[in-house]
Amino acid sequence: MDAVPLATPEEAWRIAKSLNYRHIGGTVVAVVQDVETGEVLMVGHMDPVAVVLTLTTGLAHYYSTSRKRIWLKGETSGHYQIVKEFRTDCDGDAVVLKVVQIGAACHTGARSCFSSPASFKIRLNRDA
Amino acid sequence: MDAVPLATPEEAWRIAKSLNYRHIGGTVVAVVQDVETGEVLMVGHMDPVAVVLTLTTGLAHYYSTSRKRIWLKGETSGHYQIVKEFRTDCDGDAVVLKVVQIGAACHTGARSCFSSPASFKIRLNRDA
Repeated sequence: MDAVPLATPEEAWRIAKSLNYRHIGGTVVAVVQDVETGEVLMVGHMDPVAVVLTLTTGLAHYYSTSRKRIWLKGETSGHYQIVKEFRTDCDGDAVVLKVVQIGAACHTGARSCFSSPASFKIRLNRDA
Repeated sequence: MDAVPLATPEEAWRIAKSLNYRHIGGTVVAVVQDVETGEVLMVGHMDPVAVVLTLTTGLAHYYSTSRKRIWLKGETSGHYQIVKEFRTDCDGDAVVLKVVQIGAACHTGARSCFSSPASFKIRLNRDA
């Protein structure tokens, strides 16, 4: 599909309605990847309104399951995510966003939540 | 950190205990990436036992929130995931697995759940 500037409200609502909000707080899981490198930057959650706002503005919005409200990523930090691609999975309970990340995705200031000072990495080599 | 063949049970349990199982069914979200291409193959969930089994065997195990049991990915399909890297995020409620996928990640037979016949993609271009 060719890129469109933004989804229309009708198209966004049709997509939002097609998803299965079976996760915590009535959400789908949103995996956020850097559009250039494929690095996973963060995992968030979206309710139907966050999906519509994301698709109609091109800026990632999430539903905070702790604060129980929608938030625009970057609304306080300025670290917006410009969404280039939005994909749903086979059973509609997860989405992947490919984004241009302004600044840092993680609240710690790290580029990715998975490379923050508080994150942990182990490499395995079963074939060794 | 250098790759180790597999985590010891003690190390695996230490890692499993450090996570925050706040998601559906008492789980963390597990994002699965192809270790070579970075493609997101699927999103699953893990409880503490699935984390321990994954780290001590090098094969991805998940917790099925619908069937309420642990499963070895590939146990019926043969489509195992050999885990090369396991990362936690900044607040310990999500992990990224980088895997060698045997066969298909998706139950539809698609390589990725996000490129299955049932999935949907929209590309945006806010800057256009």
